[in-house]
Amino acid sequence: MDVSAIAESVRRKLDERIPRTEWTEEERTWYKEDKKRRKEAEAALKKHVDLEGNVPSPSEEAVLSAQLESLKMDADAPAFGRYTLKALTTSSCGDDSVRRTWVEAGTLGVAHPACATNQEVWLRGRVQTVRAQGSKVAFLVLRHQYATVQVVLVADSVPSVTRDMVRWLARSGEVTPESVVDICGILVPAQVKSCTQNDVEVHARRIYLVSRARVPLPFEIADASRRADEDGPHVHRDTRLDHRFMDLRVPAHQAILRLQSGVSTLFREWLVAHGFTEIHTPKIIGGSSEGGAEVFRLRYFDENACLSQSPQLYKQMAICGDMRRVFEVGPVFRAENSNTYRHLTEFVGLDIEMEIQESYHEILDVLEQLFQHIFEGLEQRFGAELSSIQRQYPFQPLRYKRGRGLRLTHRQAVDLLREHGEQVDDLVDFTSEQEKALGEIVSKEFQTDFYVIDRFPAKCRPFYTMPSPDDSRYSNAFDVFMRGEEIVSGAQRIHDVDLLRQRITEKGLDPATLQSYVEAFQYGVFPHGGAGIGLERVVMLYLGIGNIRECSMFPRDPKRLYP
Amino acid sequence: MDVSAIAESVRRKLDERIPRTEWTEEERTWYKEDKKRRKEAEAALKKHVDLEGNVPSPSEEAVLSAQLESLKMDADAPAFGRYTLKALTTSSCGDDSVRRTWVEAGTLGVAHPACATNQEVWLRGRVQTVRAQGSKVAFLVLRHQYATVQVVLVADSVPSVTRDMVRWLARSGEVTPESVVDICGILVPAQVKSCTQNDVEVHARRIYLVSRARVPLPFEIADASRRADEDGPHVHRDTRLDHRFMDLRVPAHQAILRLQSGVSTLFREWLVAHGFTEIHTPKIIGGSSEGGAEVFRLRYFDENACLSQSPQLYKQMAICGDMRRVFEVGPVFRAENSNTYRHLTEFVGLDIEMEIQESYHEILDVLEQLFQHIFEGLEQRFGAELSSIQRQYPFQPLRYKRGRGLRLTHRQAVDLLREHGEQVDDLVDFTSEQEKALGEIVSKEFQTDFYVIDRFPAKCRPFYTMPSPDDSRYSNAFDVFMRGEEIVSGAQRIHDVDLLRQRITEKGLDPATLQSYVEAFQYGVFPHGGAGIGLERVVMLYLGIGNIRECSMFPRDPKRLYP
Repeated sequence: MDVSAIAESVRRKLDERIPRTEWTEEERTWYKEDKKRRKEAEAALKKHVDLEGNVPSPSEEAVLSAQLESLKMDADAPAFGRYTLKALTTSSCGDDSVRRTWVEAGTLGVAHPACATNQEVWLRGRVQTVRAQGSKVAFLVLRHQYATVQVVLVADSVPSVTRDMVRWLARSGEVTPESVVDICGILVPAQVKSCTQNDVEVHARRIYLVSRARVPLPFEIADASRRADEDGPHVHRDTRLDHRFMDLRVPAHQAILRLQSGVSTLFREWLVAHGFTEIHTPKIIGGSSEGGAEVFRLRYFDENACLSQSPQLYKQMAICGDMRRVFEVGPVFRAENSNTYRHLTEFVGLDIEMEIQESYHEILDVLEQLFQHIFEGLEQRFGAELSSIQRQYPFQPLRYKRGRGLRLTHRQAVDLLREHGEQVDDLVDFTSEQEKALGEIVSKEFQTDFYVIDRFPAKCRPFYTMPSPDDSRYSNAFDVFMRGEEIVSGAQRIHDVDLLRQRITEKGLDPATLQSYVEAFQYGVFPHGGAGIGLERVVMLYLGIGNIRECSMFPRDPKRLYP
Repeated sequence: MDVSAIAESVRRKLDERIPRTEWTEEERTWYKEDKKRRKEAEAALKKHVDLEGNVPSPSEEAVLSAQLESLKMDADAPAFGRYTLKALTTSSCGDDSVRRTWVEAGTLGVAHPACATNQEVWLRGRVQTVRAQGSKVAFLVLRHQYATVQVVLVADSVPSVTRDMVRWLARSGEVTPESVVDICGILVPAQVKSCTQNDVEVHARRIYLVSRARVPLPFEIADASRRADEDGPHVHRDTRLDHRFMDLRVPAHQAILRLQSGVSTLFREWLVAHGFTEIHTPKIIGGSSEGGAEVFRLRYFDENACLSQSPQLYKQMAICGDMRRVFEVGPVFRAENSNTYRHLTEFVGLDIEMEIQESYHEILDVLEQLFQHIFEGLEQRFGAELSSIQRQYPFQPLRYKRGRGLRLTHRQAVDLLREHGEQVDDLVDFTSEQEKALGEIVSKEFQTDFYVIDRFPAKCRPFYTMPSPDDSRYSNAFDVFMRGEEIVSGAQRIHDVDLLRQRITEKGLDPATLQSYVEAFQYGVFPHGGAGIGLERVVMLYLGIGNIRECSMFPRDPKRLYP
């Protein structure tokens, strides 16, 4: 490597730069630091050449290659300091206040204050596309989350914007799609149909490459953003999920997860306002969870433990401890080897448990009001996300009744199904086909996609479920359905310790593993009940999305443990 | 068993009851149902006697014994329907609206509307104490959560309150402490110093035993409620935690957990208002978490997996996916065999991760504002809980600076410690003794219990930490301390994939296990950083409570896997 030739080229290029009198204060500082850095780099390079034959350590090599890169950039960069590979944004410690005027792409428009004042603003985003128009003009579409904005670079529009800068941006191959760049420029009114910010563009004066994306990408964002019925390549779900960090950049896919976030925010908001306390119960539990089947087992120091299948027993203990009304948002684990569109091995459970005064229907009252709050909140606060999802995954908005919702008993549901020609047995759970058929019947007859089936047969429910007082074949238990699929399962629980013990024995469970649970019922318990809700399922069915994996950021199923 | 004798006694007693003309509508209904029930019970009993020699099934036996109990209660209960063991509150299905006027103990006072109108109200609660005064009067202190209210039963005050009723309540041994009872009565102004509701009492007209507590209790609530310096028995922490469902009834202990709930509510509230999105990342992860040591391992179908030690890598992948600002509230797992006052093997992590524009100190700005919101929110919304904790566990309120907080560099902290005679090495982490000494020095010199130590030595921090730009022995990493103990650890992260790979190798980690993480950094990443907060630790140090187990509802440590 001819170090002195590179150094000479750098010095020559420096003289061709913008006159010092035009430099900004920032550029003066930059220059001073840069000079020092160049000297160090030259010295290091010389030393490296002197020591030729010695193998440098990985850190030394990294430093050297960064320094070489810097020299090379300098040599290629006549518009000194106005475009380049930015030094790593490491933010020195004294340097702790934001000094530039930053704007967010999503806020840009003719109404933005900077549009009237011609003030230079900074914005950071990803390169969605970049192209040259002749040798003087380059267009860049900058993306930040949902927003896209057009950036235009015109050589000689100001002295510091040169043809070399245009070439670097649009033709050098340095600035790859998905790279992160900082743009400094002014806002100018313009019609830009192809961007979300469609009444302004940014006339760039400086561009820095903050983080360069490797080529090729695992897949193109545009391909992953197509509707199923649109022409052009599509990306397989598994490929997308393998590279979820890329997939989340697809507006609709990120929107689904923002909506998921909205559901739990709205869930908590309503419950806290109605006297519920949030609790956190352990996920590592001794014994074998609620009876044993399909749990993940692990060693806990010298003991056997498993992962919690639901906070059921703990939230009931909180009730035994007079917490009165509690809820939890947390992971639940099911070691079921089910590879379907609607099963996950780890999902987020939204659980509630509450004292009841006279009837377990008080729980249904709570659930109906709670879901109404969630649905209305999504409509009011997540309009942008819903539109974004609607564009890629068209769906019919969910129909639900305001106020008291539709409640059918299991018996009534069986009758409805039979009236419509379905073969249904009494006193057993519905199959998922029957559930879907019922969803369609209810949708037609009652004009709602959200309803309750109450009074489930006792033998389909867990041991802790309160039997119906008038017919022990049934129970004070219900499910809530959305578009023909279950999203909530709930019931009154047995608060009488003798009845609880009896049910454990009748269900053939081992009383020893449930000892600390049963003990909690010996010392006076308020009548109570509750429900468990699957967060991802609520999102899937609210949106009518066909696969639950789309509604989990990093889904887990029997075949997926990564990323 | 002489069934006909029992039946005869029941019939006789019925005639001695309150004249029908005095019955309420509810009592009429009750009577009708009761008559039917008695007939069935008699029939069942007769059948049982007929079949003597046959062993009934457990359910049959339960039904029979309940029916017998009901006959016995009838026979013993001259004030028919006005006190008794209540039938299980199972709430028949049609019966789904609350028909009684229920009040909550905590709302009772002279200002309560029912106090002026003499209206009969219903309230449910636990028997804290019950005692007779002669044969005509009984006093019961009813407790519901924090509230206690005095209930008085005076024989002959109304025709239906009899001496038998007083005897049943206060002398029969039926109504044990901690039992749940329903009281129907009127509110009467009275001075009751010993109760939280100290300007009214309830003159009872009916009392039902809803759920009877077994005697003896595992421990007395009064004993578990004593200050450490108070005379009288105290309950060992392990005993309390073994029966956490009882321990939560101690006002201060429940208050600690309600405060814990408040911290996460306030945490989310501020973050959602500031553009953060809540995420849920998997707890079962492939590979060996962030480098391997001290993880709980499990089998995941045919693969090896472990429990997440933090959402670190996933929240960074969310940033790579352009989520911009994210947070998570969820369990984290540490298989450390540490039996100290401040370690748990499973705790709740409050995690944030965000893009930064110019400096990682933007994260500190967020944290300081966030904690100020939390502290102010606790003071404003949790006054009752704080007083309740203060009474049993006196503590000095936390001192913190409004606006920009105290930020010292690690170097400055080392100097401060040396000035005060401590032996401290450069470039290593503080011991917990040094941290506490520093806390005391800071408390005296800067009048704050909440502060930041910035620019930690690089070798104490994980591989993904951004080194300081001016001195690679240090890093862009910080801890936040409360009362001399760490509650938050945070830093700028490396967003450059080459530097990241280099640090993985330098730290001696296996790149293979971190492959899907590193891959996420190849395709352009926004500069970013974040922090992890231990929820239980925040609560412990905010309250100056001496043991973290008090701040977790069902704590997990190497020796505690139950309940």
